[in-house]
Amino acid sequence: MDYFKESLSLHKRLKGKIKVVPKMDVRTKDDLSLAYSPGVAEPCKAIAANEETVYDYTIKGNTVAIVSDGSAVLGLGNIGAKAAIPVMEGKALLFKRFANIDAFPICLDTQDTEEIIRAVQIIAPVFGGVNLEDISAPRSFEIEERLQDLGIPVFHDDQHGTAIVVLAALVNAAKVVKKNIFDLKVVINGAGAAGIAIARLLRCVDNQDTDVCISVRSVIACDRKGIIHQGRTDLNTAKQELLKYSNPENKSGTLKDAIVDADVFIGVSSANILNAEDVKTMNRDAVIFALANPIPEIMPEEALKGGAAIVGTGRSDLPNQVNNVLGFPGIFRGALDARAKRITPAMKLAAAFAIADCVPNPTKEEVIPATLNEAVAYKVAEAVKAAAMG
Amino acid sequence: MDYFKESLSLHKRLKGKIKVVPKMDVRTKDDLSLAYSPGVAEPCKAIAANEETVYDYTIKGNTVAIVSDGSAVLGLGNIGAKAAIPVMEGKALLFKRFANIDAFPICLDTQDTEEIIRAVQIIAPVFGGVNLEDISAPRSFEIEERLQDLGIPVFHDDQHGTAIVVLAALVNAAKVVKKNIFDLKVVINGAGAAGIAIARLLRCVDNQDTDVCISVRSVIACDRKGIIHQGRTDLNTAKQELLKYSNPENKSGTLKDAIVDADVFIGVSSANILNAEDVKTMNRDAVIFALANPIPEIMPEEALKGGAAIVGTGRSDLPNQVNNVLGFPGIFRGALDARAKRITPAMKLAAAFAIADCVPNPTKEEVIPATLNEAVAYKVAEAVKAAAMG
Repeated sequence: MDYFKESLSLHKRLKGKIKVVPKMDVRTKDDLSLAYSPGVAEPCKAIAANEETVYDYTIKGNTVAIVSDGSAVLGLGNIGAKAAIPVMEGKALLFKRFANIDAFPICLDTQDTEEIIRAVQIIAPVFGGVNLEDISAPRSFEIEERLQDLGIPVFHDDQHGTAIVVLAALVNAAKVVKKNIFDLKVVINGAGAAGIAIARLLRCVDNQDTDVCISVRSVIACDRKGIIHQGRTDLNTAKQELLKYSNPENKSGTLKDAIVDADVFIGVSSANILNAEDVKTMNRDAVIFALANPIPEIMPEEALKGGAAIVGTGRSDLPNQVNNVLGFPGIFRGALDARAKRITPAMKLAAAFAIADCVPNPTKEEVIPATLNEAVAYKVAEAVKAAAMG
Repeated sequence: MDYFKESLSLHKRLKGKIKVVPKMDVRTKDDLSLAYSPGVAEPCKAIAANEETVYDYTIKGNTVAIVSDGSAVLGLGNIGAKAAIPVMEGKALLFKRFANIDAFPICLDTQDTEEIIRAVQIIAPVFGGVNLEDISAPRSFEIEERLQDLGIPVFHDDQHGTAIVVLAALVNAAKVVKKNIFDLKVVINGAGAAGIAIARLLRCVDNQDTDVCISVRSVIACDRKGIIHQGRTDLNTAKQELLKYSNPENKSGTLKDAIVDADVFIGVSSANILNAEDVKTMNRDAVIFALANPIPEIMPEEALKGGAAIVGTGRSDLPNQVNNVLGFPGIFRGALDARAKRITPAMKLAAAFAIADCVPNPTKEEVIPATLNEAVAYKVAEAVKAAAMG
């Protein structure tokens, strides 16, 4: 199937992928009097008297805003708010499909950090959570961080959603190759939103003082200029921060230098940058998650030729699809059900382990559950809810 | 039925009155590839290349934001954004029920005029129209006015929706009492959003240079302190402006002074302020629209005792219910279908006449169509669309 051509005609035929529908019929005067004037005054008064009852009488408790400024959409880059709408509608579809959450796309006609933060604060009353999406780094870090006190979960899926699903895949991959996850040397290519969040989660940066902490031995991150190390003078704040918990031996050089003796390669950036010869320089039974989309950093066939034990990509037509849809629906479902005020590091780890557990007997070709496996979101939701409550 | 008690339990059972649902199934990998990655890139690119195609590929063309800051909700006053949600959800229900429009409540956690204007501009990309609702005057005037260049219709329903439905009722009432609408002397009690918009529409203030203009002979507006006249020193800008097209003889005094010899009384403010003796001072065959809700300015029985020919209220249990739901669904339907950039005075007049025309043979007890008459919105939509297309 030609996805691109078909997708265009599908979108044109449907004129968008979601709709807003009533939960009740309005056929009679009584219906109208109950749903609207005069009866509606009663839930209004109840909420005015006690704000928390907004969760009892309105859609808030099951409604998530998918917020984007269109600055970093898929592989398309900064295409702006309107052009981002189809992606956000697609995301809304997945929220409903996998977690029965009512999600609505909010595409912002500004790329100013302060304006975005303020807009999200202002529109928050009707939402029970905010999924930040496709906002370019490093602005996305600040936006997410400064919205953590909003009183509802604010979660940048490109960061944490990706990191959670990668960790899930890594947990099972380690089992398959019989390595201890605490011993793994990991190289991450790409130091934007996803790369940094993966590094933080794998090094347990946000969770170190708790007993819920697993950490790989080392992470080395690379960007387009090669290894991120102390000697670099061109690093933004986020990349400088990264050095606190990565590259402990202060290696320098290119990506190809970085992966020598590494156990794991995680690519979240550019197509076609590794070959079989590179993989041969890695440790035995290397694990490769080549997540650049649609063209991965290395094709599975090539990676296996180089001796890789396990290869995952972002693609649905290849084994081990590492896809955010395994994470965000269940994460928000659990957070909403627990009425959590934020999504904590413990909740993120719980989500990762729940996803991993959905594959009871992982193999080289199945370290991660299938994207369309409906059980995943519900297991993730349970685990996240328990972590939120506990 | 005890609407208040029943309404509370209904809202609690449903947990809000609307939901967001997919227009398509996502069962297979192909579905996912078309609705989301990688296929979704194609409509995104098309919109990035030509912004106008956002109407072809997304929900924009059928989606309306119902925006409120909760500062003037029903008869409840300034109850804030969260407590306003049930009303906005109810409105969304009506948009769908009567005009198949996908409307979504946006309740703003600010009552600052500048912040509201900016927030609406910022969230506009996904919406094809904005229904401003329950925002207190005079801020609502400025907010609406300054958003007129947004590129999509921005319509304050409490003002224009009410005015349009009142004009429709008045057109038919004049026929029934065999008076020429151009000869009518009208008194309006209440000089907030609704009262001022009614005065402007009845005096054809926004439409005077066109051939689409009908105007009553005179309007006198009253507020809590009595007649609004030149000698008052306590008038806000909106009320000062009102004097340009009302009270031509500069009458002063109370509401009771105002209605002497008037043909029409329109109340949009306070319960129980007129009695039969007052109505007796009006012209023969007086028309009374006592729209305060739930308790009107005068009950129909009392008004008829005073010699009124026609009485309308806002209540569903009495004849001649003057209800905004006769207006806004069809007005937005027509505006969206025409892809109008604003709702012009000509479109408002077209809506009023279309509503009036839905009662082919008006009588004293039926000057306005029934609130649940499904044909109204479609006739209004047609008329509004035609007026928009010019």
